[in-house]
Amino acid sequence: ELRSLLGRYHVNGAPVEIVHAPDVVRMNEQPTEVFRRKDSSVRVAMRMIKDGTGDAVVSTGNTGAVMAAGLADLGRLPGVSRPAIACLVPSEHGGTLLLDVGANPVCKTHNLMEFAVMGSVYMESVINKTQPRVALLSIGEEPSKGTELTVSTHRALSALPLNFVGNIEGRDILSGRADVVVCDGFVGNIMLKFAESLQGFLTNAVRRQISRNYFSHFGAILMGPFLRRMKRTFDYAEYGGAPLLGLEGVCMICHGSSSPKAIKNAIWSAATGAAHHVNQNIVEALALYRPAMEGAGANGKD
Amino acid sequence: ELRSLLGRYHVNGAPVEIVHAPDVVRMNEQPTEVFRRKDSSVRVAMRMIKDGTGDAVVSTGNTGAVMAAGLADLGRLPGVSRPAIACLVPSEHGGTLLLDVGANPVCKTHNLMEFAVMGSVYMESVINKTQPRVALLSIGEEPSKGTELTVSTHRALSALPLNFVGNIEGRDILSGRADVVVCDGFVGNIMLKFAESLQGFLTNAVRRQISRNYFSHFGAILMGPFLRRMKRTFDYAEYGGAPLLGLEGVCMICHGSSSPKAIKNAIWSAATGAAHHVNQNIVEALALYRPAMEGAGANGKD
Repeated sequence: ELRSLLGRYHVNGAPVEIVHAPDVVRMNEQPTEVFRRKDSSVRVAMRMIKDGTGDAVVSTGNTGAVMAAGLADLGRLPGVSRPAIACLVPSEHGGTLLLDVGANPVCKTHNLMEFAVMGSVYMESVINKTQPRVALLSIGEEPSKGTELTVSTHRALSALPLNFVGNIEGRDILSGRADVVVCDGFVGNIMLKFAESLQGFLTNAVRRQISRNYFSHFGAILMGPFLRRMKRTFDYAEYGGAPLLGLEGVCMICHGSSSPKAIKNAIWSAATGAAHHVNQNIVEALALYRPAMEGAGANGKD
Repeated sequence: ELRSLLGRYHVNGAPVEIVHAPDVVRMNEQPTEVFRRKDSSVRVAMRMIKDGTGDAVVSTGNTGAVMAAGLADLGRLPGVSRPAIACLVPSEHGGTLLLDVGANPVCKTHNLMEFAVMGSVYMESVINKTQPRVALLSIGEEPSKGTELTVSTHRALSALPLNFVGNIEGRDILSGRADVVVCDGFVGNIMLKFAESLQGFLTNAVRRQISRNYFSHFGAILMGPFLRRMKRTFDYAEYGGAPLLGLEGVCMICHGSSSPKAIKNAIWSAATGAAHHVNQNIVEALALYRPAMEGAGANGKD
């Protein structure tokens, strides 16, 4: 099936090896069901990482299913209590990595500390950012603002040898004031889905506006390419996929609706992550920071 | 001072009475400082509601200061454990009221239940929405998704005689699927500030894009009025201000940078709220729903 599709796009000579997977995971299936269908492509891919015949997984599948398969087949990196879904969102000066965006709705201080370390190492190893600025998402810049969790995490992150720049508010996510923004998966998921929905909201607003005014209509035609780019501004998959951090293998998620460019970026990010040993770097950083993390009140247990 | 300003705009004949307040609260001051400066305009206004010479307060001042003054001078409505800051955000079919957006970073089930009742009554009394659809903000539509708080609140809201439409995700806030969206003040504040920051982010993106391409530049001139409107799409103050719900008086907050139209809308909303007895309706609804709220596990204590 895939071979005939590749033939249609005249890429039959590309250095691509096709590995068969007899089964399919659909978007509406529960991640737990994946385990019964042993031979879906995502599990075949995970097994290839496990046995060393593959270096990274890029999937446009259901995020929960990929995370579940990764946890089952690869397991967690040493020192990681909870893997996180990260997401590179557009910001004023490049991209900002937001994590967790949905794997862990309820977090403890040590989970957020691990997210901070993993995010920092990812930005350094994959996005080539030196001394990434790490921030904690809260409702005020003062360390005392927010919830018990943000107050204790602020204190804990201040004690780590990261480039921690303090709390930032919702308005600063797009301002580029930080390279890594740490939050629990409840807030992160709501934020991300809200941001993704802006694409459709803006498109509809443009459409309504255009039908109202002749000059705007003419202007919109000239601005067409720009408006199409704006639509993509809020589609996180455009920015090279969402890495699953903390798994014993490099895994990257794209949307099913991702553009060819987004898929290319995700494959590039996954390849860079594998080539630059992002996971080994995460394990080493966590081991190095462990004494400081424990000193700051995180005991590594969950 | 005000009289000379009014004179400059040729509105000296308007039916406006000016009441003197000798002191000023600045944006960078702590709300607690307000109490020492007894005669700031916001406190004079609150006292006017209290003694019956005023019907509502509209302020472009610091939200925390106005809430603190309201709590000190007016107090809470009977049956309200925690007042909330609500915010009418733009959505596909009119506006959606999001609350709490910052007064209560940590909430319990009965706080969210009260927010749901207050929001529903507000949309009915002030925005003239019959049977407002009330939703709970979470990370999945299934009642079991989210945190302990969202799971228990979903169950509790299902037991109230509200038009509860269940959980919605971040992507549904702008879709118009609900008229009232309930969340804790931590998530709500981060969401709102993120949404407000989009205005500047879009403007900068437009500017960068325009400098790149001659045709886009020409198009942008034609689309100027449209782009200005888009900028305002994400400024919540444009939509008639942010009501403080649960205080013993009608209070509405605007931005200092609000447009004349936004100020007009806020005054209109405040006047409507006072004329339609929004607070009396809130008290009656809470009293009516109290048995059901207590049955659902909310004891009204805090």
